[in-house]
Amino acid sequence: MAVLITGIGELTTNDAELGKLRDAAVVIDGEEVAWVGAAADAPDADERIDVEGRAVLPGWVDSHTHLVFAGDRTAEFEARMAGKAYSAGGIAVTVDATRSASDEQLAANLRRHVGEAARQGTTCLETKTGYGLNVEDEARSARIAADVADEVTFLGAHLVPPGADAESYVDLVCGDMLDAVAPLVRWADVFCETGAFDEAQSGRVLKAARERGLGLRVHGNQLGEGPGVRLAVELGAASVDHCTYLSEADVEALAASDTVATLLPACDLSTRQPLAPARRLLDAGATVALASNANPGSSYTTSMAFCVATAVLQMRMTIDEAVWAATAGGARALRRDDVGFVRPGARADLHVLEAPSTAHLAYRPGVPLTAAVWRRGKRLTSGFVSKW
Amino acid sequence: MAVLITGIGELTTNDAELGKLRDAAVVIDGEEVAWVGAAADAPDADERIDVEGRAVLPGWVDSHTHLVFAGDRTAEFEARMAGKAYSAGGIAVTVDATRSASDEQLAANLRRHVGEAARQGTTCLETKTGYGLNVEDEARSARIAADVADEVTFLGAHLVPPGADAESYVDLVCGDMLDAVAPLVRWADVFCETGAFDEAQSGRVLKAARERGLGLRVHGNQLGEGPGVRLAVELGAASVDHCTYLSEADVEALAASDTVATLLPACDLSTRQPLAPARRLLDAGATVALASNANPGSSYTTSMAFCVATAVLQMRMTIDEAVWAATAGGARALRRDDVGFVRPGARADLHVLEAPSTAHLAYRPGVPLTAAVWRRGKRLTSGFVSKW
Ligand SMILES: [Zn+2]
Ligand SMILES: [Zn+2]
Repeated sequence: MAVLITGIGELTTNDAELGKLRDAAVVIDGEEVAWVGAAADAPDADERIDVEGRAVLPGWVDSHTHLVFAGDRTAEFEARMAGKAYSAGGIAVTVDATRSASDEQLAANLRRHVGEAARQGTTCLETKTGYGLNVEDEARSARIAADVADEVTFLGAHLVPPGADAESYVDLVCGDMLDAVAPLVRWADVFCETGAFDEAQSGRVLKAARERGLGLRVHGNQLGEGPGVRLAVELGAASVDHCTYLSEADVEALAASDTVATLLPACDLSTRQPLAPARRLLDAGATVALASNANPGSSYTTSMAFCVATAVLQMRMTIDEAVWAATAGGARALRRDDVGFVRPGARADLHVLEAPSTAHLAYRPGVPLTAAVWRRGKRLTSGFVSKW
Repeated sequence: MAVLITGIGELTTNDAELGKLRDAAVVIDGEEVAWVGAAADAPDADERIDVEGRAVLPGWVDSHTHLVFAGDRTAEFEARMAGKAYSAGGIAVTVDATRSASDEQLAANLRRHVGEAARQGTTCLETKTGYGLNVEDEARSARIAADVADEVTFLGAHLVPPGADAESYVDLVCGDMLDAVAPLVRWADVFCETGAFDEAQSGRVLKAARERGLGLRVHGNQLGEGPGVRLAVELGAASVDHCTYLSEADVEALAASDTVATLLPACDLSTRQPLAPARRLLDAGATVALASNANPGSSYTTSMAFCVATAVLQMRMTIDEAVWAATAGGARALRRDDVGFVRPGARADLHVLEAPSTAHLAYRPGVPLTAAVWRRGKRLTSGFVSKW
């Protein structure tokens, strides 16, 4: 069954040849985009929907979240915002709650957040393990994630569990844990930062993952300059995420590589770090993605629109750069070309705005602008608010 | 008919004695709050609604908007974000479009934006004239605003119309224009800034308005230090708005006065100014309000939640300070005590969050968290998205 979506005031295709179209139409056939062009030239279809001048863009590709978790860290956030010490916080709190939760609880929490993201236009979402930190709970997290998310990343190397020895823990990650998790996931990631895993440990984890055929991602350069970016580029990681503190050599290495620099502005704000240097990266020629880093500790938002608005208002990305980074950029960071685009053959993931152009995503910060969402050719029920 | 809203996980009353309640309930009778207390002690009512642990707070009081306008300035915003010159911009563009629009067009545009704000929890909204800039169009704007908004402010002194002489224009504002508009509005405002009206001109406008019984408001200290704050305090204005650049004397004057410092963070971000010094004002003892400054030029958002999140994440206001500033603070800036509170006798303006506490407004930036809204005791239809 083919659906014609017409009356599109502005269509962002992210396709180099199609570009941005005015007065456009899209035909969806099954799960894919079948046709894109001028509304006046649109072919017939079984169903016809007129979006009356609204803007349409590819659904957000959120390439970095941590949503297999349980527990609540609101009080820790409040204390941080009030500038107060809070001894009971940190990732370990979420690890405890996640280990204690049932499979059903973890799956329900994940589905709730993925649904919330989808109602805001996120149609492709990566999520990570990393709150299990033992063989059993990392494998369990990966299984639950694989059921719900588009892409799953193994992050056993999120932090050294309290009481464990770092080297022994890396041995476990590289051995039994990868053995258990590798069949369930496409990606492996490591938190390469002072206080987490050093360069040698991070390198061991990434190489062990690569030997098992996994693609690589790195958390790096979040809290200060460090080896994360260099390591990611050297090992051909698809993405290095955070990139808040970058040396000139880091920027040059990224620009000369296929490794995407994935920036997480909501995390930078929520942890009161500086915003990542998007302009330096773009001006050097690096590929930039934007993602939410949705997680209960450092960035508890699923709003890609907030990330785009922040990137434009405060990181000096242009609107087109920011929208690209949050759609095709996320797809690039996940080494995909079936999402992040609106063109024939792409997955029919469409985001209709309650606005005539994508500029309104930054022009109207905070206003919920998602008017409708199609994912795999299926229209999501509209309306954000849950009923009770 | 009395409605009992119960199961409130966290109730923000803004009342000094009631404070913040857990496991609370509210009874609405007609347009007012009739009872507030512990859910276990709640009296019977005709209807009972269980919000299942959600947080409830007073509806936002947005004390500063400019929503009687026509025309589109998206291209100007895009150019500013791209760092490009844009000669065709500015308030005069909106003035031309507003003068050319019919009453019906202006009223429909205003209603659309007020409805959008209400669906995000804004239940009391001030708006201004200021895109007419002649007697007829200022009076027309005031009439249209009075039909829709809770509070209307005369801003004939928004800028000197292109081609006019500043002193002669101030004469007109203080004379025929005030004669025509004063019966229709409660407030008068002046844009006291280099490039708009100087201290003497601003003082003339404010004194002429005061003589006609209007309350006073001032736009001041937006683009640099200047006389706006001093003048507002001297003349007993209810509020001085922007306050982005403040001398120590300004902060001290505000702290020693009843004049509210109304901060407009979405405007600061949208114009790439620094964020206003909220912490200095609060630490000195000044009263701070947060407002959207919704207008098509410098701040095209109706999202009070975005303002609250920005105030907490980037201006170092605590969550409680920011929520107070966007509710009771706005009410104080409008010299009202019937809104901005949830207590017996207050207007039944309630905002139910899709979250267990107000902390989530900053913890989850950009996520649409409005679950339900009551205004004057009437529940708004839920769901943000317009249907087509
Ligand atoms: Zn992360
Ligand atoms: Zn204003």
